Amino acid sequence: MKRPDLEDIRAAHRRIAPYIHRTPVLTSAALDEMCEASLFFKCENMQKAGAFKARGACNAVFSLDEETASRGVVTHSSGNHAAALSWAARLRGIPAHIVMPSNAPAVKRAAVESYGGIITLCEPTLAARESTAEAVIARTGAELIHPYDDYRIIEAQATAVIELLEEANDLDVVLGPVGGGGLIAGTALAIHHLDLLTQVIACEPANADDAYRSFHEGKIIPSIDPDTIADGLRTQLSDRTFDIISHFVDDIVTVSEEEIVAAMRTVWERMKIIIEPSSAVPVAAALSGDLPIVGKRVGIILSGGNVDLGNLPF
Amino acid sequence: MKRPDLEDIRAAHRRIAPYIHRTPVLTSAALDEMCEASLFFKCENMQKAGAFKARGACNAVFSLDEETASRGVVTHSSGNHAAALSWAARLRGIPAHIVMPSNAPAVKRAAVESYGGIITLCEPTLAARESTAEAVIARTGAELIHPYDDYRIIEAQATAVIELLEEANDLDVVLGPVGGGGLIAGTALAIHHLDLLTQVIACEPANADDAYRSFHEGKIIPSIDPDTIADGLRTQLSDRTFDIISHFVDDIVTVSEEEIVAAMRTVWERMKIIIEPSSAVPVAAALSGDLPIVGKRVGIILSGGNVDLGNLPF
Repeated sequence: MKRPDLEDIRAAHRRIAPYIHRTPVLTSAALDEMCEASLFFKCENMQKAGAFKARGACNAVFSLDEETASRGVVTHSSGNHAAALSWAARLRGIPAHIVMPSNAPAVKRAAVESYGGIITLCEPTLAARESTAEAVIARTGAELIHPYDDYRIIEAQATAVIELLEEANDLDVVLGPVGGGGLIAGTALAIHHLDLLTQVIACEPANADDAYRSFHEGKIIPSIDPDTIADGLRTQLSDRTFDIISHFVDDIVTVSEEEIVAAMRTVWERMKIIIEPSSAVPVAAALSGDLPIVGKRVGIILSGGNVDLGNLPF
Repeated sequence: MKRPDLEDIRAAHRRIAPYIHRTPVLTSAALDEMCEASLFFKCENMQKAGAFKARGACNAVFSLDEETASRGVVTHSSGNHAAALSWAARLRGIPAHIVMPSNAPAVKRAAVESYGGIITLCEPTLAARESTAEAVIARTGAELIHPYDDYRIIEAQATAVIELLEEANDLDVVLGPVGGGGLIAGTALAIHHLDLLTQVIACEPANADDAYRSFHEGKIIPSIDPDTIADGLRTQLSDRTFDIISHFVDDIVTVSEEEIVAAMRTVWERMKIIIEPSSAVPVAAALSGDLPIVGKRVGIILSGGNVDLGNLPF
């Protein structure tokens, strides 16, 4: 087991480049003024399937040898990874089996179905998810693609910051959300391999602060029933993401639910782009005034834009 | 009275370039598929003050000689032009007087105030607006900047399609909304002067079809109490915009309120950008299946992104 190196990240980038969007990097005079900093927003909310997850899913699917691929892929995420994996599998023409709790929101089922994912419902417990996925694997031989505890995923999530740095160099700080840790681990790993002095700060809802606590206590703290609007960040770190985050992330900070909703609304109103609550977490951190970013060049990875317009927090 | 020529448009572009955003041109595989065409979206929703109106206002304000400018500017629009004029006047350090009906939504007053506009309230009638503006002019000597019946405005609105064509050449068709006609007149004039074969099609709410009727009947038809969600398109053509539209716009089409709301939602959900109802009008036309755009390269000018998030139609 060896962490991905820079060439692994570059190879992932070449592998997925034909399929993913080169998402824009936007700036906002209004937010710059509010933060007293120069902000560069990497818009993964405009990524295929609406989130950076398309990068990892695409890399994993296109890394498979023909025989393995032909048996399909499976996951038991119900969020953006599920939609992204369905999207990537359809690109390769292989089945994607998505194990989903029976209480998953209709909008999430619809997203997976829109990309041709094959949904298997199960009871809403982790044990049921895992055993149902096992049963799918036993029946089909499909390859399990974990949403983040997988170097094929992490090395591909690293490509977002690679692109960001190509358009906004000399960043002093990069901010990104942390849930399971795939995105921030990839980000920190890329910056480490590029030998940059850029600081990497992970941002997390205070109501789901397991990564914050894990980082500071030096061991993985489970995420138990986190009550946050940032639905993409309710998961907990894994062995692979915790290892990379412990070594290469400079700090983890937390923000309140009110700050998340306010930051989301500010981005919608001032930047005219749709971000989901998870994306608003690093924006909230930048707006909080608590980060040492005044006068600095700050990259912010907007992780996704999948929201239910019929159920907004404002 | 002579219509602006290409050099006037180029001069306006040079004049405003230091102040406006070079807004992105986005594409969407999902919308391309729905329309069976290649769509290029010019994102004026991300323009300064949230709409293309910043172009015209900025050009008008920076065209003034020092002495005239020192007396300030005035308008009796309550929408995006009012906010844009306030923004442009602040850039030049001169007062912007905005005459607004007493029943204007709080969100519009807040926008004007956020840019330092000086609001004078009046009764909600056209006569009261005009007489109040006259009184402001008598008192201050401010220059009236009409939202569209002004070549300084029209030649600057033309710069949006100039930028669009720099990033997406060989467009077969350009679609834009028509209200007072400043944007579509500028667009058609630019394409005429560039000697392009690109068709220009204006799009209008069926519930505010005065431009459609004016175009087909050969004279300006007043817009009387139009009932459309596209609040930017309730105004009627003026002498200058009607003249240009009659000569250089190829067609005007209309869409229903339901189509406007559905198109707006589709753009929000699939492109992850916030557009206001007026911007959704040309998108609705493209999605309607009624335009001859299959297989073609189609530019769409997304005119603005100012919506009240507390009052959405979905």
